[in-house]
Amino acid sequence: MRIQGISGSRGVAVGNVYRYIQEEIVIPDYNVTEDKVEEEIGKFATAMASTLKQLDTIRKKALDEMGPEEAAIFEAHMQIAQDPSLSDGIKSLVESSHMNVVAATAQTIETFANIFLGMEDAYMRERGADIKDIGDRLMRNMLGMNPRGLSHISGEVILVAHDLAPSDTASLDKAVVKGIVTAAGGPTSHAAIMARTLEIPAVMGVGDIESFADGDKAVVLGTDGIVEINPSDADWTEYTNQALAFQEELKRLRESANLEATTIDGHHVELFGNIGKAKDAKHALTMGAQGIGLYRTEFLYMENDELPAEEIQFEEYKKVAQDMKGQPVIIRTMDIGGDKELKCLDLPSEMNPFLGYRAIRISLNRPDIFKVQLRALLRASAFGDIHIMYPMIASVEEVKQANAMLSECKEELEAEGKDFNKDIKVGIMIEVPAAAVISPILAKYVDFFSIGTNDLCQYTLAVDRMNEAIGSLYQPLHPGVLRLIKHVIDASHEQGKFTGMCGELASDPVATMILLGLGLDEFSMTASSIPLIKNILRSVSKTECEEVANKALTMDTAEEITEYAKSVLAEKGLL
Amino acid sequence: MRIQGISGSRGVAVGNVYRYIQEEIVIPDYNVTEDKVEEEIGKFATAMASTLKQLDTIRKKALDEMGPEEAAIFEAHMQIAQDPSLSDGIKSLVESSHMNVVAATAQTIETFANIFLGMEDAYMRERGADIKDIGDRLMRNMLGMNPRGLSHISGEVILVAHDLAPSDTASLDKAVVKGIVTAAGGPTSHAAIMARTLEIPAVMGVGDIESFADGDKAVVLGTDGIVEINPSDADWTEYTNQALAFQEELKRLRESANLEATTIDGHHVELFGNIGKAKDAKHALTMGAQGIGLYRTEFLYMENDELPAEEIQFEEYKKVAQDMKGQPVIIRTMDIGGDKELKCLDLPSEMNPFLGYRAIRISLNRPDIFKVQLRALLRASAFGDIHIMYPMIASVEEVKQANAMLSECKEELEAEGKDFNKDIKVGIMIEVPAAAVISPILAKYVDFFSIGTNDLCQYTLAVDRMNEAIGSLYQPLHPGVLRLIKHVIDASHEQGKFTGMCGELASDPVATMILLGLGLDEFSMTASSIPLIKNILRSVSKTECEEVANKALTMDTAEEITEYAKSVLAEKGLL
Repeated sequence: MRIQGISGSRGVAVGNVYRYIQEEIVIPDYNVTEDKVEEEIGKFATAMASTLKQLDTIRKKALDEMGPEEAAIFEAHMQIAQDPSLSDGIKSLVESSHMNVVAATAQTIETFANIFLGMEDAYMRERGADIKDIGDRLMRNMLGMNPRGLSHISGEVILVAHDLAPSDTASLDKAVVKGIVTAAGGPTSHAAIMARTLEIPAVMGVGDIESFADGDKAVVLGTDGIVEINPSDADWTEYTNQALAFQEELKRLRESANLEATTIDGHHVELFGNIGKAKDAKHALTMGAQGIGLYRTEFLYMENDELPAEEIQFEEYKKVAQDMKGQPVIIRTMDIGGDKELKCLDLPSEMNPFLGYRAIRISLNRPDIFKVQLRALLRASAFGDIHIMYPMIASVEEVKQANAMLSECKEELEAEGKDFNKDIKVGIMIEVPAAAVISPILAKYVDFFSIGTNDLCQYTLAVDRMNEAIGSLYQPLHPGVLRLIKHVIDASHEQGKFTGMCGELASDPVATMILLGLGLDEFSMTASSIPLIKNILRSVSKTECEEVANKALTMDTAEEITEYAKSVLAEKGLL
Repeated sequence: MRIQGISGSRGVAVGNVYRYIQEEIVIPDYNVTEDKVEEEIGKFATAMASTLKQLDTIRKKALDEMGPEEAAIFEAHMQIAQDPSLSDGIKSLVESSHMNVVAATAQTIETFANIFLGMEDAYMRERGADIKDIGDRLMRNMLGMNPRGLSHISGEVILVAHDLAPSDTASLDKAVVKGIVTAAGGPTSHAAIMARTLEIPAVMGVGDIESFADGDKAVVLGTDGIVEINPSDADWTEYTNQALAFQEELKRLRESANLEATTIDGHHVELFGNIGKAKDAKHALTMGAQGIGLYRTEFLYMENDELPAEEIQFEEYKKVAQDMKGQPVIIRTMDIGGDKELKCLDLPSEMNPFLGYRAIRISLNRPDIFKVQLRALLRASAFGDIHIMYPMIASVEEVKQANAMLSECKEELEAEGKDFNKDIKVGIMIEVPAAAVISPILAKYVDFFSIGTNDLCQYTLAVDRMNEAIGSLYQPLHPGVLRLIKHVIDASHEQGKFTGMCGELASDPVATMILLGLGLDEFSMTASSIPLIKNILRSVSKTECEEVANKALTMDTAEEITEYAKSVLAEKGLL
């Protein structure tokens, strides 16, 4: 039996079905009387103590068995759990509305999680999943239910679940779980992102898991988004071989992580990592990154009730600069507003937040905030090769204004006798269509461009990619988007500048040859995608990629371009 | 004393200040008891009767003194007032919440008006102002207050008010009111739109009207957004002469309404009108339109609880076709969704409606609705030169799908033996940046383009122009927008197709020479703007406009381009 879902993580896996069904949390609907409020709040404290103890156990286990990166997830969970605004929110609901503590927790967690879950940036939405997971754990502890987790499974299984939470995936053993199938979710769900990070083939969105029985033979065809249940013996043997071949390929990719990203005709490409926190830089290095192409600084602003002080920012930026040992680190100034609500900044609610007051528009309007960041960036530039990047640039005036503030900061630091790199490179995100169109003008004022394909596609196609009603209209390989990308790269090269890309298209293997052919100088992506893209770059020649790109540019539709690019990859055995 | 406001309507006017201060409506806060509900609802019926009587009186007066166009405004008011969903809403609030009838009216009107006031299209927002105005009148009648209106003023005055409602402006006599100053509002406020329609110089957004005293001498410098109070005698004489010269210019413009829109070197331009209802076509003709460049069909869908039947649509389209006597009529298929809520269609609420499910995206998804419109358009094409235009096109696939449905409709009509123009021209709006970029591809599939500058600017610059926090970033003369416009026009000409423009930029005199220089074939705009733009077109040569356009294209910023274009116009005495 064959089930069509959505591709979550590439590759082929075979194994026996393990249905992972969580006991559902039933939120009690009683109210507490005034005299029981104290007692009810006491339940929260008890549950919190158990929660922290459990998380610490998982953290230690993760540290021993998987390493510091994975352990850090649970360190973060412990921090979120102890955030006073969470406990204050829950307590105040019990006190004022006499709500029971489980209901109060559910409501508070919902409010918190939704702030993140509504965001455009996949990295940010992941934090929403974390918060829901912590709430889940808290409520299970309050209700005396078993905590979630997958550490009890053994054998070699295809994990089949409604959906997976961070604590499920983080306690998941790669030696045991060979493939993943979920009823819910799509390519941007937490389960899909974790599956890609762990390199486990996965299919999402199969609807329900009624067709699966424990012990069934199952094949996960992650690349095509297909699951086969109980195939014929002949097929099973064939799929088992494919699964083995996939494991071999992964091994080869990992071994080549530290090789140069150089094409067979000797063209070198910068292959960089995208990170969200200073401590992620080391992981990016391990995966083969030769620099950081996008360090998002939003976390510094989102984690606290107060704006981050210069000293705090300086230490963070310095750490990345040092960890990267002189390799380039492109740090994007704050890209907040719109969908990213901030506790420390009172931003207006907007009818169309993606077309609103955000990123550089806020920075230029609030020099008191922006200059703190610029000073911290400049000071950190004394410790490594930091590049500054402004987001959401739409006009020359904005670049000039931002650069004027940067000059002021340089003068101040000079007067204070503080060290910084006087020739620090300054670039801009190309994510607003106007910026792509006037890139020949903008190139005069900056050292580099970095194309943010997620936003650029949204604006160019007038499609909010989070809007499910029009999801199929979000086409990063739309001929209009490709032409803009070509225009930007050409404009930068004509003036001796370089163009990188830090949007999701940079990590899409289907796009790699086209982008290289268009002349893209730097590809930056989530660390786990680096080996795959590096392998493609090392397997092709720049000359053939130019031919592929030129042919793609003659095509009328995204579908045609996608089919063509896939056929070229398939011919070379790279798909 | 000089006060800086915002330009609302161009020109110079002098006169004595007349402060128009309306008694404020104070909404009572009492609730009604169960036994008084009947009586309270009775007050609504009484107020409605008075309201309809007043509106009919104004309507008759408008018909006698101003003509059918102006009278139609009050006919529409009478229709809106009698909309059962309005009275039902008010009654149900009194019945269920025991709210008093004035409070219930205020709340119901607010809900109704906000649907329109949040819309992107200025024409639609005007309907929000109408609804608020009717609510105001209803409440004044319930509270025994004087109705609003300006018919009591005499002399020659500069009208100074906090803001003006439709019933104020519609009862306004041009012979009496020479200039308008409002504390609130901007260039898209109802007062500004009416001032432009009536050709009365106006300044908006002066903050408050405390500086004005009845009888003060005042000068309205509408073009610059400046008001002078009690100037020196010498200045007063000078301004009086300027006001006279302005009146002379208006007279000359009106007299030339029926002249051809041909440049001094013999280049003919199509100068068309934008309309929202079939009956507006005649007014456009009077103002000198040689065709309709944009007939918005949204009203047909917005006015009713049910989707408009083919027959109803057919009659409307046929009327415009006939009224225009063989001149081109470009009818845009339904551009609903996003900000335009519909009673007859259950559309999802969206996080970023401008980047959402709207226009052709809905049409292609709902052939049951779209084909009804296409059939009506085809049938009406037997009665005049109707062109069909699809809105919000972003890809070739969309054009092909829409055209496939059109072919189906043609076959159906043929089989039914119904008449239609077999060679009906089909074009698309260019308002999504991707469409502008791939216009060389799209030109293969259509007969014409019409550039919708409002949306094109919003997406290209990633600026919601209704968002006040970033209003200054909405720049239709941004070099990126200009380059896209040039690209589109060039692409159409290379394939023997034509390009029009129906966005607000088409009626901006500052842009006229540049657009003509870029080769724009057709300018379409609100009827009242036609004389002004026609005068510019008739005063310049195509050759000099090409020079101006080429020079503008070398500039880096919208500000530079605007200043340059203004200086050229000023030199020629056209500003």
